Amino acid sequence: MAISNIRYGEGVTKEIGMDLQNLGARRVCLMTDQNLSQLPPVNAVLNSLAKYGINFQMYDNVRVEPTDQSFLDAITFAKKGEFDAYVAVGGGSVIDTCKAANLYASSPTSDFLDYVNAPIGKGKPVTVPLKPLIAVPTTAGTGSETTGVAIFDFKELKVKTGIASRAIKPTLGIIDPLHTLSMPERIVANSGFDVLCHALESYTALPYNMRSPCPSNPINRPAYQGSNPISDVWALHALRIVAKYLKRAIRNPEDREARANMHLASAFAGIGFGNAGVHLCHGMSYPISGLVKTYKPKDYNVDHSLVPHGLSVVLTSPAVFAFTAQIHPERHLEAAEILGADIRTARIKDAGFILADTLRKFLFDLNVDDGLAAIGYSKADIPALVKGTLPQERVTKLSPRPQTEDDLSALFEASMKLY
Amino acid sequence: MAISNIRYGEGVTKEIGMDLQNLGARRVCLMTDQNLSQLPPVNAVLNSLAKYGINFQMYDNVRVEPTDQSFLDAITFAKKGEFDAYVAVGGGSVIDTCKAANLYASSPTSDFLDYVNAPIGKGKPVTVPLKPLIAVPTTAGTGSETTGVAIFDFKELKVKTGIASRAIKPTLGIIDPLHTLSMPERIVANSGFDVLCHALESYTALPYNMRSPCPSNPINRPAYQGSNPISDVWALHALRIVAKYLKRAIRNPEDREARANMHLASAFAGIGFGNAGVHLCHGMSYPISGLVKTYKPKDYNVDHSLVPHGLSVVLTSPAVFAFTAQIHPERHLEAAEILGADIRTARIKDAGFILADTLRKFLFDLNVDDGLAAIGYSKADIPALVKGTLPQERVTKLSPRPQTEDDLSALFEASMKLY
Repeated sequence: MAISNIRYGEGVTKEIGMDLQNLGARRVCLMTDQNLSQLPPVNAVLNSLAKYGINFQMYDNVRVEPTDQSFLDAITFAKKGEFDAYVAVGGGSVIDTCKAANLYASSPTSDFLDYVNAPIGKGKPVTVPLKPLIAVPTTAGTGSETTGVAIFDFKELKVKTGIASRAIKPTLGIIDPLHTLSMPERIVANSGFDVLCHALESYTALPYNMRSPCPSNPINRPAYQGSNPISDVWALHALRIVAKYLKRAIRNPEDREARANMHLASAFAGIGFGNAGVHLCHGMSYPISGLVKTYKPKDYNVDHSLVPHGLSVVLTSPAVFAFTAQIHPERHLEAAEILGADIRTARIKDAGFILADTLRKFLFDLNVDDGLAAIGYSKADIPALVKGTLPQERVTKLSPRPQTEDDLSALFEASMKLY
Repeated sequence: MAISNIRYGEGVTKEIGMDLQNLGARRVCLMTDQNLSQLPPVNAVLNSLAKYGINFQMYDNVRVEPTDQSFLDAITFAKKGEFDAYVAVGGGSVIDTCKAANLYASSPTSDFLDYVNAPIGKGKPVTVPLKPLIAVPTTAGTGSETTGVAIFDFKELKVKTGIASRAIKPTLGIIDPLHTLSMPERIVANSGFDVLCHALESYTALPYNMRSPCPSNPINRPAYQGSNPISDVWALHALRIVAKYLKRAIRNPEDREARANMHLASAFAGIGFGNAGVHLCHGMSYPISGLVKTYKPKDYNVDHSLVPHGLSVVLTSPAVFAFTAQIHPERHLEAAEILGADIRTARIKDAGFILADTLRKFLFDLNVDDGLAAIGYSKADIPALVKGTLPQERVTKLSPRPQTEDDLSALFEASMKLY
């Protein structure tokens, strides 16, 4: 496994101008979104670029929950700019968009579908050298600063997919907990749910030595390797932090200890799932986001309907882990205990139900919408949700328990109402 | 922090020929030592090189506990060979020698002292590009496959020192637990003690945000950053594995689970200390090794006297942690508990004594020589041992508690006899 460089500490963003000098950067592309462009994290970066005389152009048109069109717009900007380094300041949407912009600007003759995951795209391996990318996360969820994954909404097919290659992993992630202090409550909650599911899914993913087919050449191994002794360490550690700090981080924006710990947990879980992979919650989340009707979440200042990624992931989690627990029930029980369940008298065969109940209680306490029905879906949507999950084989095949279309239908149905 | 790539699994060494093909290597330098050159780990590499038609030259003259002279011999070989990739198969001595050979062959006009740690050398930053180096550890101790450190014995000054730069970190570490099955008992024990001390020292090292001076440019930060939230995860995880598996791994060469876990723990502790640093046990170990008189350890097939690195480190550990515990006593107590102490009624002010007693019992159970006296030192040697520790400021300054020369004398004196 490979891990990006990360730097952690309050205020470390102010060094970014020096980092770019050290990289010899002469034309920097700074990417962010319009909400962030006036906020302290971007200001901190701008001040440092000015202090060290770094020449840059800013692209602040990143779409929250990006699409193929919004990726292409950023790619066009990047190609024109002939940049020699990239800085992404934002949540997963910004960092992912910047990864794609760097990739396609570095491989200008490639067709967009060339690097998109198969079966939607061609899933070609990246062999061109990319420019350095420094990621400055402002949410505590995606872990994108540590991974080689960039996710977008493929509008034509109404499905989320992505690009996955170690080559697009950021050169450096700057984890500055000061940036999380400007996050509104629901963004803290939803991005925290992403951390929760990264940890739970990577810890329960198919073990690395049971994955098949096993490529004969190591260079052809996928970014997602299955759970392994290293990703397990990160997953459990991140889960413990979520259990201890997520509620505090949501309830009190001034709780620096909680927000700083969740910011680190996001990176830790990212290192874990970036190597092990995720499975059903993530695989099923992509159509839940992609098929959104009119849902507009609180605290997100956007002009389009959207289901925030973390929410789309966590709503199926009780059903998913009740389903997967028959494989490795002891890991499911361990996760439930970390999240607060009393398992002293638990029976191992109840592990799935116990973890599901623990998750339901956790979500209820945090005022999460009551299932898929509460965000606009009904039973009639299930066939489309299942159809949208099938192309996510890259992740769904990492589920410890194989699943049929009927299984997926049942999981969506069980997720319509949680409480 | 940065972490090397590692690959883990029984038999993964057989892929090394493909890895070298993937790197485009045309002239490979294979380094090992004479004991290993006839053993299964080297055979596994040779078979893979043959299978994939990799052109290579073998250097099997690495000295166990290398010296400046033995480094220079390997460097001369590397310079002549004009290699485009390196493979190191062995313990820390081999991997460290290979790092040095790669560095100086890539920087042919540099003087040997240029990159050696100050104040003994000039401690210049490495700015030349190095060739890829794949490390295949055959012991479970050094963690050298994950670090940017190469240690040697400076004969003229009778002191151990080294080279420390992220630039010399291996490109890939291949952790193949099959290789540990050929390790004799005392090599398992002594290399395991190195893991134990890497974990204990990095967990108790000066915190990263209390280190000074704090370089104004991040590029000038030392490889050893002080304890931090990431290295803590690795240190504690490695310590738990040592507590569970080291005794089993020593006692039974057929205990694959124990030996595989110790092989991983070595890499995990390496990732931790490679970022956080070590402190007094390591700083004081260098003169203990460097001033060796006639001690010849069991199970080491060498023609010179030597104190194995892990033994030289662990013999002072009870005294060191009794000394450092007044800073962060709770961490010392936590470590004692992980190593088996019952701390339910412990007082926090006794943390140092409790950890020291726990370590003494641990070493006694494993038939470790009874202190520095048992390996040939007496009170009369203490001034020379202290003098040899002073140049190790790079690590000793990471001790949570500052120390005077009198403190060092007292620590050596307290380490003469353990039981």
